[in-house]
Amino acid sequence: MTTVAILGATGYTAVELIKILLRHPQAKITALTSREEKRPVCAIHQSLAGRLDLPLENLTPQEIAHRAECVFCCLPHTASAKVVPELLQHGAKAIDLGADYRLDTTEAFETWYGEKHPDPARLGKVPYGLPELFRDQILGADLVANPGCYPTSAILPLAPLLQSGWIEPTDIIIDSKSGVSGAGRTPKQTTLYPECNESIAAYGIGTHRHAPEIEQILAKGSGQSVNIIFTPHLTPMDRGILSVAYCKPKKPANQDELLTVLREFYRNEPFVQVVDHLPATKDVSGTNFVHITVRVTGGRVLTLSVLDNLVKGASGAAVQNFNLMFGYPETMALL
Amino acid sequence: MTTVAILGATGYTAVELIKILLRHPQAKITALTSREEKRPVCAIHQSLAGRLDLPLENLTPQEIAHRAECVFCCLPHTASAKVVPELLQHGAKAIDLGADYRLDTTEAFETWYGEKHPDPARLGKVPYGLPELFRDQILGADLVANPGCYPTSAILPLAPLLQSGWIEPTDIIIDSKSGVSGAGRTPKQTTLYPECNESIAAYGIGTHRHAPEIEQILAKGSGQSVNIIFTPHLTPMDRGILSVAYCKPKKPANQDELLTVLREFYRNEPFVQVVDHLPATKDVSGTNFVHITVRVTGGRVLTLSVLDNLVKGASGAAVQNFNLMFGYPETMALL
Amino acid sequence: MTTVAILGATGYTAVELIKILLRHPQAKITALTSREEKRPVCAIHQSLAGRLDLPLENLTPQEIAHRAECVFCCLPHTASAKVVPELLQHGAKAIDLGADYRLDTTEAFETWYGEKHPDPARLGKVPYGLPELFRDQILGADLVANPGCYPTSAILPLAPLLQSGWIEPTDIIIDSKSGVSGAGRTPKQTTLYPECNESIAAYGIGTHRHAPEIEQILAKGSGQSVNIIFTPHLTPMDRGILSVAYCKPKKPANQDELLTVLREFYRNEPFVQVVDHLPATKDVSGTNFVHITVRVTGGRVLTLSVLDNLVKGASGAAVQNFNLMFGYPETMALL
Amino acid sequence: MTTVAILGATGYTAVELIKILLRHPQAKITALTSREEKRPVCAIHQSLAGRLDLPLENLTPQEIAHRAECVFCCLPHTASAKVVPELLQHGAKAIDLGADYRLDTTEAFETWYGEKHPDPARLGKVPYGLPELFRDQILGADLVANPGCYPTSAILPLAPLLQSGWIEPTDIIIDSKSGVSGAGRTPKQTTLYPECNESIAAYGIGTHRHAPEIEQILAKGSGQSVNIIFTPHLTPMDRGILSVAYCKPKKPANQDELLTVLREFYRNEPFVQVVDHLPATKDVSGTNFVHITVRVTGGRVLTLSVLDNLVKGASGAAVQNFNLMFGYPETMALL
Repeated sequence: MTTVAILGATGYTAVELIKILLRHPQAKITALTSREEKRPVCAIHQSLAGRLDLPLENLTPQEIAHRAECVFCCLPHTASAKVVPELLQHGAKAIDLGADYRLDTTEAFETWYGEKHPDPARLGKVPYGLPELFRDQILGADLVANPGCYPTSAILPLAPLLQSGWIEPTDIIIDSKSGVSGAGRTPKQTTLYPECNESIAAYGIGTHRHAPEIEQILAKGSGQSVNIIFTPHLTPMDRGILSVAYCKPKKPANQDELLTVLREFYRNEPFVQVVDHLPATKDVSGTNFVHITVRVTGGRVLTLSVLDNLVKGASGAAVQNFNLMFGYPETMALL
Repeated sequence: MTTVAILGATGYTAVELIKILLRHPQAKITALTSREEKRPVCAIHQSLAGRLDLPLENLTPQEIAHRAECVFCCLPHTASAKVVPELLQHGAKAIDLGADYRLDTTEAFETWYGEKHPDPARLGKVPYGLPELFRDQILGADLVANPGCYPTSAILPLAPLLQSGWIEPTDIIIDSKSGVSGAGRTPKQTTLYPECNESIAAYGIGTHRHAPEIEQILAKGSGQSVNIIFTPHLTPMDRGILSVAYCKPKKPANQDELLTVLREFYRNEPFVQVVDHLPATKDVSGTNFVHITVRVTGGRVLTLSVLDNLVKGASGAAVQNFNLMFGYPETMALL
Repeated sequence: MTTVAILGATGYTAVELIKILLRHPQAKITALTSREEKRPVCAIHQSLAGRLDLPLENLTPQEIAHRAECVFCCLPHTASAKVVPELLQHGAKAIDLGADYRLDTTEAFETWYGEKHPDPARLGKVPYGLPELFRDQILGADLVANPGCYPTSAILPLAPLLQSGWIEPTDIIIDSKSGVSGAGRTPKQTTLYPECNESIAAYGIGTHRHAPEIEQILAKGSGQSVNIIFTPHLTPMDRGILSVAYCKPKKPANQDELLTVLREFYRNEPFVQVVDHLPATKDVSGTNFVHITVRVTGGRVLTLSVLDNLVKGASGAAVQNFNLMFGYPETMALL
Repeated sequence: MTTVAILGATGYTAVELIKILLRHPQAKITALTSREEKRPVCAIHQSLAGRLDLPLENLTPQEIAHRAECVFCCLPHTASAKVVPELLQHGAKAIDLGADYRLDTTEAFETWYGEKHPDPARLGKVPYGLPELFRDQILGADLVANPGCYPTSAILPLAPLLQSGWIEPTDIIIDSKSGVSGAGRTPKQTTLYPECNESIAAYGIGTHRHAPEIEQILAKGSGQSVNIIFTPHLTPMDRGILSVAYCKPKKPANQDELLTVLREFYRNEPFVQVVDHLPATKDVSGTNFVHITVRVTGGRVLTLSVLDNLVKGASGAAVQNFNLMFGYPETMALL
């Protein structure tokens, strides 16, 4: 049994994480933090009524590390990196569901996030929590950078094709569609129901912070520089991401060959399903699964992937990493 | 041609009103106000791109009355009643889409709205802008109180049955379901997309401010005291209200008789359709129509009515009143 | 470990059931039937890709009983009652998720379902699978009638108040709102996306088959004749039922007393949460929980309850019954 | 005043058309056809209650031409081309909202639609009803091929850039997202509410019939062969199309230059708005407007366009063509 804390427990990622952990036979939630809220968590998230009534508390890193062996940080950027050093120092392990430890350099972080990094010495040394690509580094790690939701959806289908030389690394267009929960629970006019419902729109073209994350991880995996164009869309649904990537083949490719490449690559992966049909986000809603497929048309290789942004795109992946870090079966609480 | 101004032009009611007025051959929008925004209205409401680029302005009542013969007030409660006296004094007519002039007494207003009324002398003298019941008072009026969205949906089917003595006035249960646009455009956690989507919930039981409005108008129309139980619901859709009222018959009633009562009552009304089938909110979406029907079952009379809360429930009704106040055909711009 | 079969595996209830059973450590799915489909179940339900690839088969009752100790019948009415006798005769136990064994008399069945009952001798002897009221009968039973979705939502809040004499049994109005999955997976114009989306409508007033089921079970539980008015609504969401019941108090009642009655009644129930706030269907989405509350206003007692029609309203309840019938912990696979 | 008939009046396109025509001061609907339905149109489309009660009839082309000067064909492919010759012969004009007269050659038609064309002699001679590009041909024409919904959204932003040599014609990727109404009103499992809601998926990659239509029209407009990759998506909303096109610049391009090119091109167009912001489908919902913009990023030119698939993508465009064919102001009934 492992004691766990969740920092920043008021958002959508946190409540999803709590629900998964409540099903986890080896995890025990012992602390939930918030800087403003002091009510029981079930008053903030009505879906937890009768299931968990821990209060939200404003705790120091030391207090947190005292209570929990593993700390899940669901905090805005730079907030995690301000507490992680102390958490580790006091003996806790940590999983950052935010972006603080994903980019490898302070330059990249400061360029894309516009702030100084509070813990620059660790950058570049923290495993990227995508077990399908970096399982060895995650096993037993003290700190893991949980991937962004769009990056997971984009990287999983592309990495095998890049690594095996089927596609050009510098002509990749990723058109992604996400549900609105990805935008968080802080009130904003842009995510009001009457703004989002019955509407789809692109946003953040050329400026979304997940673009450099995707490029960095694909480059790391394939040993070559990668350039992408990334267009995220806000889609009228709660959850789910569909990413369609348009790639240029490096050599003549047919669909069956590429499906085989993907099937081989993910043969032993419990959460990645390579499918023949065109997947829908609903196929994986509420699960930690990713469904991916590939098409060849008009001289391009198209990859399509779907996942649930709150599960495999955030909290499910975090528990998958937790399982690896603490020696539990990787799929525990996730099937 | 009549010049018109809209006060509080940033919300959903205002943009709906602007779109109707842009189709109105005898209305010309000459002023739009906001206390904070100064950008062109099409920057606030992207759907107006290329259709209207008037700036939002912070104007005094005198300036407004100078610019416009008719002023539509889309303001929070008490804000209208603070400017209406001056508007009228400077020669403008006004239609209040808010609640300031709906209740007849300062006591009722202060009980339900929790504030002192800024213009108490006018209470009880302002026509209630439901032309189907009060057309004579609206014709040529200087000031009209535009009805609430729920009240219009509840009053239209019930008033004829109460007036002709078919149902008891003191045992009426109204179960209403509304789209989320009714909750306004100010960012609130409760109306975020991921809170409302895929969910329905009741709210405001026993406390909703539209309950006394419904009771007062039904009482006025039927000459008897009326008591209702009112349960509004937030429904995962942009617009639309369905109200189901459960009434106790005063005398044996069958469905056909009651349908005939309603049909006779609304025979010449351009916007009220008495239908045989059970209506859906979508049937009237984007229109100024109300569809109503009646059922008799289990010893109760049920009325069902649907309307679009932003059109017949707000801005469409306002233009209908405008047409009556200024001598235009009542349906102008509304069919 | 118990082997289980699912009859009629192509619908929404079946796929939900499969997903729950895949998480059940003591259930093993050994047969899935369909009269028309022969493809693997994951071809019919893409969400099962990589999780279950059993083929759909057209099997005789004897073959089914040979393969499975427990048979879940997700069949149209009368279809279950045609196979259940043989299933039992060959030693299987059965849970009927349809309506064949819910009503107590052939007269009632034939009145409401318009067909002769294929297994009349068993009517009135089959436990109604609502463990919160009939646990003793379900424990170890061979055949259980799984409740309808609306009935579960209506019965749970009302039964305690009726049994303890707080409300009149003959003046109960139930206004229920359901997601569209309740209408099944057979293509119909009325459940096409563009018909249901952005729209709410009542249906089946005075004719819905769940009305007599509610009345019968409430009568059985309280020892008195019960009459309800029941208005179901199709709501633009996948899943979820909210039922608001308007009751006449038998004696002066206040909200706190009634909440206490409910809390006492359900004190030890794992899936019923009595809450203070007004519950939303989303609070219980994807779970086997029911949230209920009560309000007193305008001389009426209102109960409000929410559940997920596919889980507590169908497949979750079925697994809860399965657990009781086979001696597993009642909450297994359901938390 | 022009008399008009609508063939195939049971679908979504037809009801949208009827609503626009009811607002048209110079159009009078005199006939509605269906092969199966004989009820009044308001029984098929409840939203027409009290607005139009013409019966649906099964009429011969001669009868239709006798009743109407203009015939709108909302028919499945090949059905229009079977009646159009007779309609024209008997003196009516026709607008085909289907695909029969869009492609220029019988070979192309038979390749993509898999059937022999019933009226091959007219192919290649029928104006393509996109007034923004082919107004001269439409003015006074007897027969017009109304464009497909996706093609209109894709062609409008791309044509000016292709014609003025800013982008390569053979490396264009179009990623389009459409609401579900585009899939029609015939019951299908794939468009049931619970299948589409909360889900987005691509479909028809490499096989969608709108791809050759886009290529042909872009080629015709720019005098060069055009090749596209086209990925349509089913999006959980009733209406709206967002098309994002990824193009390769022919010469160094910046965003402002390209916006200027588009602004100049559409300077006098009443329905095309070139906007600076990223448009949302909701911005044009229920209107005949198209909002387009352009971005330059990562060495690509991106165009984004939104329209309402039932209005500018079908019935609004048809009325725009009707206005041109019969000499009415182009925007009549469309603002």
